[in-house]
Amino acid sequence: MAQNMMLYWGSGSPPCWRVMIALEEKMLQGYKHKLLSFEKNEHKCEEVKALNPRAQVPTFKHGDIVVNESLAACLYLESAFKSHGTRLIPDDPTEQALVYQRMFETNNLQQKMYDVAFYEYYVPEGERLESALKRNKESLVTELKLWDGYLEKMGKGSYLAGKSFTMADVVCFPVIAYFPRLHCPREHCPRLMEYYEMLKDRPSIKASWPPHWLEKPEGPDMLKNL
Amino acid sequence: MAQNMMLYWGSGSPPCWRVMIALEEKMLQGYKHKLLSFEKNEHKCEEVKALNPRAQVPTFKHGDIVVNESLAACLYLESAFKSHGTRLIPDDPTEQALVYQRMFETNNLQQKMYDVAFYEYYVPEGERLESALKRNKESLVTELKLWDGYLEKMGKGSYLAGKSFTMADVVCFPVIAYFPRLHCPREHCPRLMEYYEMLKDRPSIKASWPPHWLEKPEGPDMLKNL
Repeated sequence: MAQNMMLYWGSGSPPCWRVMIALEEKMLQGYKHKLLSFEKNEHKCEEVKALNPRAQVPTFKHGDIVVNESLAACLYLESAFKSHGTRLIPDDPTEQALVYQRMFETNNLQQKMYDVAFYEYYVPEGERLESALKRNKESLVTELKLWDGYLEKMGKGSYLAGKSFTMADVVCFPVIAYFPRLHCPREHCPRLMEYYEMLKDRPSIKASWPPHWLEKPEGPDMLKNL
Repeated sequence: MAQNMMLYWGSGSPPCWRVMIALEEKMLQGYKHKLLSFEKNEHKCEEVKALNPRAQVPTFKHGDIVVNESLAACLYLESAFKSHGTRLIPDDPTEQALVYQRMFETNNLQQKMYDVAFYEYYVPEGERLESALKRNKESLVTELKLWDGYLEKMGKGSYLAGKSFTMADVVCFPVIAYFPRLHCPREHCPRLMEYYEMLKDRPSIKASWPPHWLEKPEGPDMLKNL
């Protein structure tokens, strides 16, 4: 079933990682894949461009279907393989509402994390400003506290959208995993760190852990001074 | 059915507008709503903050369910009112794939449009750089050509994900509508402009047209020099 699937991915990219977690949860192991190096700009290759004009990863193909946006790929996999593996979107629209809300809110956390941790990567030298970076840091701390509050309110041992693991966790975990890795001070988000500990050994997550994180378990300290 | 719905919104905001189009398409007219002025910072009011800690619009409530992310609200409405009005997400996962892909790709077009049209709004004086704005413009032109190419490939009279109006159109139309309004040169995106003409009088879109666009049909020329 997974043999006619092909995933182009980069190690550590949250959008790639979430598609890989979804594939694992839906028991679609055995899909074909190609790991591309961001450092060597391999994701800009012709093979990817032919399927994804933005030349980004993930680039995902199932038979003739191409779905490159990570959230689109996740929703597609859930819909096409509903009865396989873990049900990631509940049936009840009331429960769905919170799953969708947290899934799409993740983009706020991801972007704000990027705007601090990868500021020098995204902003060319000569355009970098202390005032902008300071504002980005404040914005990230506020965002982190919001997510920490969600978990605090849900109670100990909760997932992001309740008592079950859902697509909200698939989508958000790869972003949350950056905070301990990049030395974010624990006091900004103690509940998120407990959540991280609870999930990091889940089989789907462990099986898809970024290979360069396995090689170098200690990440750079870009979030140390948050 | 719509009486226990409440939408806080701002005129012209693409995220608000798409939720309003979805409500119209699902025949949920009669929902309660409150128009808030961005200029007066009314979306930062306590009433919104109580439901949406980011103090943004849309803020949407249906009974006890709060869904503030616009795409989450759209998916929730489709799921909770599947058999009402227009079916916006097809049943077939193969067809869903393209609808989801275009829905989530819209964020690229929206962000790149904001990064040019609202550069001065988002970047404080003293941090603005010609080099950054120039890069943003180039990036927007590339993105526009991509979307124009999608429509070119689908053929005349097509919607964004095929022969039917879907959630992809609900999500993307409010962003596309900014290009003619802000005087984007037609040659960057002739197919998108045909698409705009085809959709602008659709009842759901007409009924939810931004009130300040009705008052002043001619917008400022922020995209004239793209």
